[in-house]
Amino acid sequence: MKIETIAQNIVDNSEKKLKEIYFVACGGSLVDMYVANYLLEHESLTLTSGWFTSNEFVKFPPKRLGKQSLVILCSHSGNTLETINAGKIAKKAGAQTVGFTFNEKADLLETADYSYIYDWGNEREVSNNPMALIMTLAVEVFERIEGYNNYSNFKEGLERIDTIVAHAEDLVQQRAKAFANARAGEKIFNIIGSGATFGQIYGFAICSLMEMQWLNAVPINSAEFFHGPFEVTDKELPFILTLSIGRTRSLDERVKKFLDRYAQKIEVIDAKELGLDLINESVAEYFNPVLFYSVLSQYRKALANVRQHPLDVRRYMGKVKY
Amino acid sequence: MKIETIAQNIVDNSEKKLKEIYFVACGGSLVDMYVANYLLEHESLTLTSGWFTSNEFVKFPPKRLGKQSLVILCSHSGNTLETINAGKIAKKAGAQTVGFTFNEKADLLETADYSYIYDWGNEREVSNNPMALIMTLAVEVFERIEGYNNYSNFKEGLERIDTIVAHAEDLVQQRAKAFANARAGEKIFNIIGSGATFGQIYGFAICSLMEMQWLNAVPINSAEFFHGPFEVTDKELPFILTLSIGRTRSLDERVKKFLDRYAQKIEVIDAKELGLDLINESVAEYFNPVLFYSVLSQYRKALANVRQHPLDVRRYMGKVKY
Repeated sequence: MKIETIAQNIVDNSEKKLKEIYFVACGGSLVDMYVANYLLEHESLTLTSGWFTSNEFVKFPPKRLGKQSLVILCSHSGNTLETINAGKIAKKAGAQTVGFTFNEKADLLETADYSYIYDWGNEREVSNNPMALIMTLAVEVFERIEGYNNYSNFKEGLERIDTIVAHAEDLVQQRAKAFANARAGEKIFNIIGSGATFGQIYGFAICSLMEMQWLNAVPINSAEFFHGPFEVTDKELPFILTLSIGRTRSLDERVKKFLDRYAQKIEVIDAKELGLDLINESVAEYFNPVLFYSVLSQYRKALANVRQHPLDVRRYMGKVKY
Repeated sequence: MKIETIAQNIVDNSEKKLKEIYFVACGGSLVDMYVANYLLEHESLTLTSGWFTSNEFVKFPPKRLGKQSLVILCSHSGNTLETINAGKIAKKAGAQTVGFTFNEKADLLETADYSYIYDWGNEREVSNNPMALIMTLAVEVFERIEGYNNYSNFKEGLERIDTIVAHAEDLVQQRAKAFANARAGEKIFNIIGSGATFGQIYGFAICSLMEMQWLNAVPINSAEFFHGPFEVTDKELPFILTLSIGRTRSLDERVKKFLDRYAQKIEVIDAKELGLDLINESVAEYFNPVLFYSVLSQYRKALANVRQHPLDVRRYMGKVKY
């Protein structure tokens, strides 16, 4: 079923007018939902939205969860127990549910009123990755419930993002290799960004570096940097800083100015230089994380190569009981 | 003006019925607001709430911000520019504003319809620290707008928390010293907790360790730990784990079980053992962060002593321009 059709069905089949949209998942899938929640939190006049790690949602769901709620769930494997349980709780409360997964036999689909099996592996078709798909579903529902004044610009952005990302991936290949060579021996990174991008900042820290490379990483919001975290800055500590397109860009630029002066190991990834300004400025910032996910994936791939630590090696996940 | 009076005035003077409460601050003050937002997000059927770092709120305020909104601001010094600007934007949109500060001549007070100058320094009167005060204001408004079924239990909790915290602070003195002696040479910590406590997990990382000790620290939600971060676990990496009272406790216990097996440098701080279960279980979990803030402050004090790095030393904040 197409995303637009799912959105239409949700609205048509709702017993009560939708009032809340909850985004519920764990780890990398939760990361991918940050931007959809960010968009609704900033743009909607009527919809309440929430971003929950599955097990917190399971242990303590919001009291308002009910027939007027939509719960969007995502599990790449489709069998993440916490997310399946979150789906059960949502259903029991009367909410409508949508499950996103890569696995067409996923247990998650049993608790989902609607399901979307996404493709995976074609890195150049980011408009079909879970991040873009979930954001699109949020926008399609938002458009139908309330009307989104930048709806057509958003849809146009979706049509352009694949080309922008493909171009950006090519552009950063050499930089990513140089970064990996220079930073192969580091044990800790500070990852910084703002606005809609922050989900990917958190995600690059916990998934790409901690999970896939067993390296510690601190995710920091650019707007928070000068209120504590910046005191760790010195010439030895490596930073990765994203410069987003959009309303929070000046916050990232302020961090850059500081780091240029007091740090030395700085990798800056600039959405503007990478071509994201080809998307209409009313919506471009929501595509920052889509771009940064793909570009940062080139960095982690390069790092994994140089460190001879393949991205799929785990010591606990799927190896031991916990 | 008493918190109850401020709440009553807000409700009485509201041109439109309150629909949103936003918590806006930076760094340590933002940390202190996490629990108030968490409480409303979970308990309220009608109020939308949001937790924003000031400069993100300034650059991109939610579109719904208006006469039906309440914006609660906090700046310890009272002169945090980003938070003052957030107050101006809230006022311009027609929202009501409350400013919390320690400084009675604070610039923040100029953009605040209501102000609360809190005391500071009496570590044993936590019911009057900004965290408890802001949560109390949120509860008092919530009670008046919608009714909070655990209101009287919450008020009773406020009466008990000072005694519990004082007792807990005494209890952890020796442990904090032992922790500081054992961990004085570490450069990176993972800080873990869940639920209402997570604000303090983030705060201990960015303020107590990064800002005050120039040590890197990764804040991790217990519910997220097994979805990425746990792959960094080994016997060399130091962990600080809070076991909260309440609905998310089992998530913390799951982390403890894992760490007991695969890590060695583990400091566990248990709200139950420290007496938080003296508060009615319907509201006890909201007092976790109040307890943990005070208890963790003993740990940071001990660490600062052993490391001979006083808590008020800065190299950038107030020293250089940025």
